[in-house]
Formats: sequence, structure tokens, C-alpha cells
Amino acid sequence: MSSRPALTGPAYRRLSVEERHAQLITSAQRLFARQAPEDVSLDDVAREAGVSRPLVYRYFPGGKQQLYEAALRKAADQLEGCFAVPHEGPLSRRLGLGLDRYLAFVDAHDEGFVALLKGGSVVRTSRTSTIVDRVRHAAAGQLFAHMQVSEPGPRLLLVVRTWITTVEAASLIWLDENKEPALDELRDWLMDQFVAQLVVTAGRDGQTAGVLRGAAALEEPGGQLDGLLERTLAALAPKD
Amino acid sequence: MSSRPALTGPAYRRLSVEERHAQLITSAQRLFARQAPEDVSLDDVAREAGVSRPLVYRYFPGGKQQLYEAALRKAADQLEGCFAVPHEGPLSRRLGLGLDRYLAFVDAHDEGFVALLKGGSVVRTSRTSTIVDRVRHAAAGQLFAHMQVSEPGPRLLLVVRTWITTVEAASLIWLDENKEPALDELRDWLMDQFVAQLVVTAGRDGQTAGVLRGAAALEEPGGQLDGLLERTLAALAPKD
Repeated sequence: MSSRPALTGPAYRRLSVEERHAQLITSAQRLFARQAPEDVSLDDVAREAGVSRPLVYRYFPGGKQQLYEAALRKAADQLEGCFAVPHEGPLSRRLGLGLDRYLAFVDAHDEGFVALLKGGSVVRTSRTSTIVDRVRHAAAGQLFAHMQVSEPGPRLLLVVRTWITTVEAASLIWLDENKEPALDELRDWLMDQFVAQLVVTAGRDGQTAGVLRGAAALEEPGGQLDGLLERTLAALAPKD
Repeated sequence: MSSRPALTGPAYRRLSVEERHAQLITSAQRLFARQAPEDVSLDDVAREAGVSRPLVYRYFPGGKQQLYEAALRKAADQLEGCFAVPHEGPLSRRLGLGLDRYLAFVDAHDEGFVALLKGGSVVRTSRTSTIVDRVRHAAAGQLFAHMQVSEPGPRLLLVVRTWITTVEAASLIWLDENKEPALDELRDWLMDQFVAQLVVTAGRDGQTAGVLRGAAALEEPGGQLDGLLERTLAALAPKD
């Protein structure tokens, strides 16, 4: 008994070109999520999608590299949408929602996420790095939009961009540590980190302080950050 | 008139095998510091060192890749030493000293540092990634030693490892932003970030809180962190 699905039959024939294209990328993504890219073959993708190897080549004449980049681009599209949450309510709730989406992606894509970010993969090229950078820039842009900042100064830019790196690094460490602690604890820790990084920067930067005051005004009584912001702003304020 | 130094003469002959080996690596490092690795040729290295191309090949039969890895390994050795500062005095002073060394390296090696960390370089392989990871692990180990922590729990581990990522990311952004702000401001900002990340984590983690209390006891009156730690610990303490 082979587990390989039949290559003929209605399911095989019924897909349009676009649907087939999307299905192959989804199959590839599923494999890349479970295995390092170098361990995935085109035969694996064909088997996963229930089609023949020549059919995969017809859609992706560039072979595995092309399929990998397509899968990566789709992953990037998904990740890019994470912080595109409605512009309403407390910033901490929006941030939490965005982080939940991001971390759910990390949880679901596992190996694929590691391969994407960790580098050292044989199929990593300057093109794949650009895709990853696009995600980072999109995330930063969305965060600035939530903060209603159109021209971030160097210090606010530094906080936001390094925090995004912190999210990536923490995600990799979390996968490495067998997904400990629980995902919501990691989420809360990352939110705390962001607030702490902003608060400390606010002590030296007026723009960041303004962002924090604006955020504090939107917080709800009893919410996660209620009081925390004001207390820490007071505690960390320059002495002069 | 060619700027290429003569291939004969006392300077060319006098070096021992070891000295020549070291000289070639230094020359390569100088080039990799100014240009992306893909733009450096073996001819460039030979010219920089004032020797012939065949001589470079004699020492590095693996060609550019081997030379690049040797240069990388030397850079890693230099970076690894950054936080190996004397175990005495306030932790903030030791941290500042380590950061000064690290950032001086970033400042001096510029393009080479970017190529090393940013990935996407054509000569980046899983082996070069391992070298970079070695530096990160060494830095984390040195920081734990300064904290007198032999078995970091998951949260302390997360703070220290993500802060190291923050240092790397901030260094890359700093180079990208034409080395703004001034290096000592970047240093102070990074130290603030570390304290903030530790303080916020201390609110949820006893080990981190213990480390901070130990660090606060070592601080000097009027020092950078005097008072800051105690005030923020109090402000961020859980309400229950």
C-alpha cells in the first residue's frame, strides 16, 4: 500500500492553473515547515501535492529554488499582515493582537520559520534576505502607523527596529527551547520588553516620550499596561 | 606608476610562515572591512599584502572562501574577547567596557561586520553561521559569568540572548544610518535597554530579580545606574 495519492482523478484535473500554482506553493510550504529546505526534494513536493514531478517543473521551471522563493514570498505576505490590525482601541491591545498572529505563524511554520530567519540554509540568497527585510520594514511601518508617527527620529527608529529583531530572536529561541514558555507568556514578555525599551528611550528622546504619553491616554482601566506606563515614566524620568 | 608594492625585497622575504599567514589574514580582513566579500578578489588580497597571487594560494589553497573563513574566525576571536573584562567593580562598568570594545570593532570593521551578520552574502555558508553563533554564545556565557549565574533559567536566558541580538541589530542600523548617533550615546542606549529588559523580566522571574539586586549592590554612588535600578524595580514590582 503506497500512501502516494493517485495522479489522476477529478481532484487532479479540476484545478485551474492558478489554483494548481497555489496548491503547489501550499504543499511546498507544508514541507518547508517540517524540514530544512535542503532536505526537501521536488519529488517530495510532487508527492505532497499528489501530482507528478514533471507537472511541478511545468509550474516551477526554476526547480526547488524557485518553489522555495515562492513559498517564502507567501510566508512573507502572511507575516506582513500581522500588525495590520484595526487602528482603534489601546495600542497594547493592537500590539498583543499583532504578536498573537505573528507567534501563531511561528508556531505553525516551525522549521520553515527557522530556515527563513536563521540563515545558513543552502538556499539562502541575497534575494531571500530581501524578502525577510521586506517583512521587517513592513512591520516597522505598521507599528509607526499605530503610533501615528510619520517621521520617526533615529532613536524611535532604533527602538522599533531592534524590538522587531527581539521578536524574531525570541521566536527562534522559543522554537529551540521546545516551545517553552507557553505562547501567551512569550507574548506578554515581548510586550513588556517593548514597553520597557520605549520607556527607557523616552528618558532621552522627546518623540518617544510623546508616543508613550499618547499610548498611555488610550489604555483602558485595568488593562495590561494600566498604570505601568505612568509609574515607569515617572521613575525613569531624568533627574534634572 | 603602479601602486603595487614590489614583490621582492627584505619585507617580502623576512616573514616566517606563521607571520606570513597572519599577514595575509590581516590584509584580507582589511579588504573585507571596506568591501562586501563578493567584491574582494584574491588579486586584491595579494596586492594589499604586497605578495604574488600564487603565494596567497600556497597559504590558502581553498582560495577566497578559505581566506574569508580565516578572516571571519579571527574577527570572531576578537569579538569573543569583548566581554571578557575583569570580574570586579560595578556590573554596569564592566558592561560598558565590553560594549565599548564591541562597538569599536563594529566602527573599525564596518562593511566586514555587516557582511558577517547580515547574511545574504554569497560566501555565507552554514560554517560561517556557526562562527557567528559561537560569538553569540561566548558573549552570553561571559555575561552570565559576570552575573555569577551558572544555570540561567529560560527567562534570563531569553533576556540575555535577545539583548545580544539587540546589540547586533543596533550596530547594523547604526552603520546603516551613517554612524549616527555618536558611539557613546549608542553605548549608553544599549546599556539602558539591557537594564530595562532585565527589570521588566524581574517582575516575572525570581532569578532575574536576584541578579538585579546583586547588580544594584555593586553600583557606585553617582554611577550611571545608581538609583535607577531600585526605583524601577519598585515601580515595576507586581501589584500583589
